[in-house]
Amino acid sequence: MNRREFNLNLLFGAGAVALPLPQSSPALRVNGQRVNTHLAELSQFGKTPEGGTHRLAYSEADRQGREYAMKLMREAKLEVSIDAAGNIVGRRAGGDPSLKPLVIGSHIDSVPEGGSYDGQVGSMGAIEVAQTLAESNVALRHPLEVIIFQNEEGGTIGSHAIAKGLTEKELNLVTNSKKTIREGIRFIGGDVDKLASVVRKPGDLAAYLELHIEQGGILHSEKINIGVVEGIVGINWWDVTIEGFANHAGTTPMKGRRDALLAAAKYVEAVNRVVTSVPGRQVGTVGKIQAFPGAYNVIPGKVTTSLGLRDLDAAKTQMLFEKIQVEVRQIEQATGTKFEFKQTNSTPPAPTDLRVRRVIDEAAKQLGLPTKFMPSGAGHDAQEMAHLGPVGMIFVPSVDGISHSPREFSRPEDITNGTNVLLHTLLKLDAMKLN
Amino acid sequence: MNRREFNLNLLFGAGAVALPLPQSSPALRVNGQRVNTHLAELSQFGKTPEGGTHRLAYSEADRQGREYAMKLMREAKLEVSIDAAGNIVGRRAGGDPSLKPLVIGSHIDSVPEGGSYDGQVGSMGAIEVAQTLAESNVALRHPLEVIIFQNEEGGTIGSHAIAKGLTEKELNLVTNSKKTIREGIRFIGGDVDKLASVVRKPGDLAAYLELHIEQGGILHSEKINIGVVEGIVGINWWDVTIEGFANHAGTTPMKGRRDALLAAAKYVEAVNRVVTSVPGRQVGTVGKIQAFPGAYNVIPGKVTTSLGLRDLDAAKTQMLFEKIQVEVRQIEQATGTKFEFKQTNSTPPAPTDLRVRRVIDEAAKQLGLPTKFMPSGAGHDAQEMAHLGPVGMIFVPSVDGISHSPREFSRPEDITNGTNVLLHTLLKLDAMKLN
Repeated sequence: MNRREFNLNLLFGAGAVALPLPQSSPALRVNGQRVNTHLAELSQFGKTPEGGTHRLAYSEADRQGREYAMKLMREAKLEVSIDAAGNIVGRRAGGDPSLKPLVIGSHIDSVPEGGSYDGQVGSMGAIEVAQTLAESNVALRHPLEVIIFQNEEGGTIGSHAIAKGLTEKELNLVTNSKKTIREGIRFIGGDVDKLASVVRKPGDLAAYLELHIEQGGILHSEKINIGVVEGIVGINWWDVTIEGFANHAGTTPMKGRRDALLAAAKYVEAVNRVVTSVPGRQVGTVGKIQAFPGAYNVIPGKVTTSLGLRDLDAAKTQMLFEKIQVEVRQIEQATGTKFEFKQTNSTPPAPTDLRVRRVIDEAAKQLGLPTKFMPSGAGHDAQEMAHLGPVGMIFVPSVDGISHSPREFSRPEDITNGTNVLLHTLLKLDAMKLN
Repeated sequence: MNRREFNLNLLFGAGAVALPLPQSSPALRVNGQRVNTHLAELSQFGKTPEGGTHRLAYSEADRQGREYAMKLMREAKLEVSIDAAGNIVGRRAGGDPSLKPLVIGSHIDSVPEGGSYDGQVGSMGAIEVAQTLAESNVALRHPLEVIIFQNEEGGTIGSHAIAKGLTEKELNLVTNSKKTIREGIRFIGGDVDKLASVVRKPGDLAAYLELHIEQGGILHSEKINIGVVEGIVGINWWDVTIEGFANHAGTTPMKGRRDALLAAAKYVEAVNRVVTSVPGRQVGTVGKIQAFPGAYNVIPGKVTTSLGLRDLDAAKTQMLFEKIQVEVRQIEQATGTKFEFKQTNSTPPAPTDLRVRRVIDEAAKQLGLPTKFMPSGAGHDAQEMAHLGPVGMIFVPSVDGISHSPREFSRPEDITNGTNVLLHTLLKLDAMKLN
């Protein structure tokens, strides 16, 4: 919605009847206390002794958290169902039957030993927006959908099912819960035989909006309330297997060894060295490692490890991967080992919609909140939804930039602010011609 | 037995009646085909797809292997029992009731994904010697005990129980089978309430002899049949914990990280560098590693790993450990992490008995087998038994020096040769005044 329309709206007020322009009420606010209470209640499912959240997709804690979210969605007068892919979808009718839906949402599954904000702020925020609209009897032109996507942390699986569909190979992937995605979808009430029914086409949605914690320290350190996300970096994951030769740790001289863990150590250092050797915001991480057989007295004959590379520029990621391969060839020579890389995830960078960015920025500024345009270093369901229509993301500060950790924290006032920006961005988008 | 006694014995022959000198029969030979068949049969318990053995102490495969060994021991006319510590003891009476027992034996538990020779050759060899004595009606002056010690790979637990007793702390250690030693002892038929009954005093045995594969490549590459072990290196193990800070792998810039796995990588390299920085046969190994939480998209906040150091000189081991600590302090500074070392095993070097070494050498030479005096880089039950009396160890070649691996292999003729050396060393020791 442009400034002229906004002022007209203020002038004439918003009636209950369907109007061509939205009932944008600049004074409308979400209930900040309520959304923060819901967030605290949600954090009970999968709570860890360290005060974090261990709510792996397809775990019992996940199922309990989903039950809780569905209860809140029904209270917010949404028509709630679980789609065939296991996503929770809450629908609200719009005034104009010719319009595609506006979608807001996020996820509630967590990484192992994670925090209580990642995904959960956006999920509770989206429900709060629906609740606020319901309580205030605000009618939207567009249908509204609140979606809680399943298994975001395992590779945006639920949103991928909607944006592109799931392949047999993807369904057979084993997740952190030890269940395959196929088993997981059944576990949370989906129907793998009807997955085709959830796939949407480009143009099937008016816009997708996601509120999320930044998960980095930029907004916090610069004391800025709202991040307007310019795009989501590409994410590439590899499983790495290193084959050496297992032998007795007491009787095998140092120089005769083909120690897979010594090779892995050189590899972990090489990844760090290569990724930090060029300027930019790219990151590279080795997050997993295991040595086999894994005993004090056996030289590791095999190591399984991983590689993660992220950047907004896919060509740069490729260049970094190739530099790492050059180092790996040298490590193989020096240690008598053999490396194998198997790519398990390759998500290209996803820019957000230029108009939506501008609307988020306007909504925030009208709420008196300073903004910063920034990339997202983390993957999000928004990158999948970008295949179907214009997307936008709203970031709120993460204290000390800590995320995927029990110490992940965002201040209640920042969560309330972010939810208000989500509400007003939605109202502004509802007034626009999007399709 | 000295050369004069030996010749007298040859001259007058050996009757069935108890004589002050042994019935050493230079022509006596073990049944080589039988001992190798027993070894092959034993390898069925815990057999892995790679053709190795996964027979962790206190596992079901261990229990089955022990049943098999006890059957063979009974066939060899030994009086078989399981002592309170879970060791299998097979007894044979001697001619002179005033003499302490001669003990021969080894272990049948394996490392994870190990081979079918380590411990198993000495166990089947000791039983074969008893069987040969029984079949040939050879009476010994000393009582004979064949002992299959439990859980050698977890730190010579069974022999330690006999040599020094087990502490509460040791009983509570969790082993690779996931059982504590206390639970394991119960599982294999021991009685933890009666552990005091198995502890022996220095002087309680006439001698202990152990046949074993070399587990290194020296005998194989030098084409020597028999290794006469000079001593067993000291073995030191530590559990190492590295604390960093778990955070999101996409949103946390490279320079803000406290990556416990990057610190672990530098540590693994440092261990290798320090251990190879000084001349000598010392070895240092990092065999275990795990990163937490262990996901593609989380910077590891914690890593658990290990350290193993071995040398014949305890002071040198200490010096190496201190050098590693200096490097670790630098790694902590560079990576913002904190290391903790907890020693889980500290076994001092154990020299073998000079007389026993000489007798092994003589027995081998009389069998026409070349010998080499050498240290043992691996720990063995013999190092525990060294607290109770004179010990000796006989090594046979390991093809390519491979051990603690499915590719561990010793040739059947070498196993037969080693078993014959064990037999004749025993016969010679029986004739000597040992206590």
